[in-house]
Amino acid sequence: MLLATYLVGGMAMNQSLLQFQQVLTLMLFRILESTDGVVGVLGAIEAINVLKRSGFKLKRSLEVIMFTSEEPTRFGISCLGSRLLAGSEALKKALKKTADNQNISFLDAARSAGYAKDQKDLSSVFLKKGSYSHFVELHIEQGPILEEEGISIGVVTAIAAPASIKVDFEGDGGHAGAVLMPNRNDAGLAAAELALAVEKHVLESGSIDTVGTVGILELHPGAINSIPSRAHLEIDTRDIDENRRNNVIEKIHQSALTIAKNRDVKLSGFNIVNQDPPALSEESIIKAMETASQELNLTHKLMISRAYHDSLFMARISPMGMIFIPCYKGYSHKPEEFASIQDIANGVKVLALTLAKLSMH
Amino acid sequence: MLLATYLVGGMAMNQSLLQFQQVLTLMLFRILESTDGVVGVLGAIEAINVLKRSGFKLKRSLEVIMFTSEEPTRFGISCLGSRLLAGSEALKKALKKTADNQNISFLDAARSAGYAKDQKDLSSVFLKKGSYSHFVELHIEQGPILEEEGISIGVVTAIAAPASIKVDFEGDGGHAGAVLMPNRNDAGLAAAELALAVEKHVLESGSIDTVGTVGILELHPGAINSIPSRAHLEIDTRDIDENRRNNVIEKIHQSALTIAKNRDVKLSGFNIVNQDPPALSEESIIKAMETASQELNLTHKLMISRAYHDSLFMARISPMGMIFIPCYKGYSHKPEEFASIQDIANGVKVLALTLAKLSMH
Ligand SMILES: [Mn+2]
Ligand SMILES: [Mn+2]
Ligand SMILES: [Mn+2]
Ligand SMILES: [Mn+2]
Repeated sequence: MLLATYLVGGMAMNQSLLQFQQVLTLMLFRILESTDGVVGVLGAIEAINVLKRSGFKLKRSLEVIMFTSEEPTRFGISCLGSRLLAGSEALKKALKKTADNQNISFLDAARSAGYAKDQKDLSSVFLKKGSYSHFVELHIEQGPILEEEGISIGVVTAIAAPASIKVDFEGDGGHAGAVLMPNRNDAGLAAAELALAVEKHVLESGSIDTVGTVGILELHPGAINSIPSRAHLEIDTRDIDENRRNNVIEKIHQSALTIAKNRDVKLSGFNIVNQDPPALSEESIIKAMETASQELNLTHKLMISRAYHDSLFMARISPMGMIFIPCYKGYSHKPEEFASIQDIANGVKVLALTLAKLSMH
Repeated sequence: MLLATYLVGGMAMNQSLLQFQQVLTLMLFRILESTDGVVGVLGAIEAINVLKRSGFKLKRSLEVIMFTSEEPTRFGISCLGSRLLAGSEALKKALKKTADNQNISFLDAARSAGYAKDQKDLSSVFLKKGSYSHFVELHIEQGPILEEEGISIGVVTAIAAPASIKVDFEGDGGHAGAVLMPNRNDAGLAAAELALAVEKHVLESGSIDTVGTVGILELHPGAINSIPSRAHLEIDTRDIDENRRNNVIEKIHQSALTIAKNRDVKLSGFNIVNQDPPALSEESIIKAMETASQELNLTHKLMISRAYHDSLFMARISPMGMIFIPCYKGYSHKPEEFASIQDIANGVKVLALTLAKLSMH
């Protein structure tokens, strides 16, 4: 059985290709919810349409998956659908206690959306390894390389290993006018120092493939006339080399301890939330994607995915490959995110031909 | 006419001392709204009760003022009530265009609370200089000095001059995994650098009286996997020396420009929101507060108010003085804020005796 994409609306809801209408309804929801996933879903359906229109006879069945919650927006867990489908025991346990910021539990939210009706145990959602012979995902690059080099197709050979860290500092706070500088232990300045230390340690790794970002930095109470008494940071670090990435994490931890000591603030939290291993694309899928690009007269390039995707988790239960297309300046997760119709069409053609090739064996 | 405290509920609503019931109702609202102002309002009323009970015959009338919005919580303007009462033309103009974060205009909010009914022009609220012979405010220190030194009463000789700055940086943002470090212009790291620069410039001023705080630092879009594309800081700087403070502001501005240049981010905003001059207490009021403390056998100390208060603005239209009492560790604007009943009672006694003395001339 060949897997192109497989639909998981709320949790493990299978859709055959004949039920297109419902798929499209759900897709509109996904379009409202996010941006970078749209081409992956619509493109997969169009690729199958292309094969249908061309009269191609499938030797394996094709399925479309739309994963729920690739973005960690509601429950703070990225790739929630694919992670659980791929059999994450840690996630299965965590979801029992997970709630959104309105304090609605994940299980209640799933039930009210019509899923997980009688399920206290989400392991029924797990897919067995070998359920699919191949998994292929089409995605915008979310980086500037293809656009800058004028190349049509990125053939992904590996997905960089992401790790997330949550850090909390606590100080005594106080009034911004009344507490003199020597008497302060400002949690916000500790956070500012750590943000700059993250950048420093990443740049010191010696590899262009190491990246680190402080995307969240929140101060409490967050008033102009209050010294911050608490600061919360969320740090994302990635690398294609797991050891090098973990070494950066260790240096960030050391910096957090040193900063806390020097500023007399408390390091009240340093939690590595996830530390996923990297994933490699499967050789036969890489080959099929390259050959497809060549036969379509499209320039292509082997490349690393520095963003991670549902494919990172699907790789745990199926051979995996990814096709990238150029996007404007590498922008993603913001209104300026854009891919041209021509580039999307190229990606869909390569996906269709790749599926055709893989389904012949 | 002697002014102790004068009630301004929403805008310029005079209350005679006979209308205590309504005063108390409004005070409960103030208690819910804030912390450090409670002693000032309840203490002023109790001071007048003390004088009444003692049979003291007033030679001047006393009024209690409760100012609206000392904290800049809703409309982002601190000491809104006293600033306008004291005749701020700048504020009068600004309030025509001021709205809260629900986009409710200040004028609509005032009208729906029963104020400013037919007023397009708020200058009717302005008080003439000389309307009051004296203005005295009782307040917790909001600093640790009195507690640390075991002194009962702080006699305020000057209020430090505050200034507020709003700063915005803008970069290209992008995906935290996909954009390599050399291709980034991270607005959040620019903000972190500026926060540390504020601390540096304040420490370099050479005076213990210079303080500076980054109480607000907000990142956009604020997601762990997004490079910050926008960062917003709000900076508070204070000093008892206006030139020294303005010199710090100039250095902060230079740093913001340099950081923006080095990191290739845009300094899209650097606005000095207010830059109020400092205020001095009036000699005869200082003398009355000192004598009152001595006669009550309470230790006292001349000191500077590093936090600012409605008194800063009342000083523009009336001779002014302030009485400080100790508070726990100098904490303010947080749940741990605390002053003991004994210290509050001492403050009320000094206020009552000061009012008595001032009313005899
Ligand atoms: Mn995404
Ligand atoms: Mn995606
Ligand atoms: Mn206050
Ligand atoms: Mn106050």
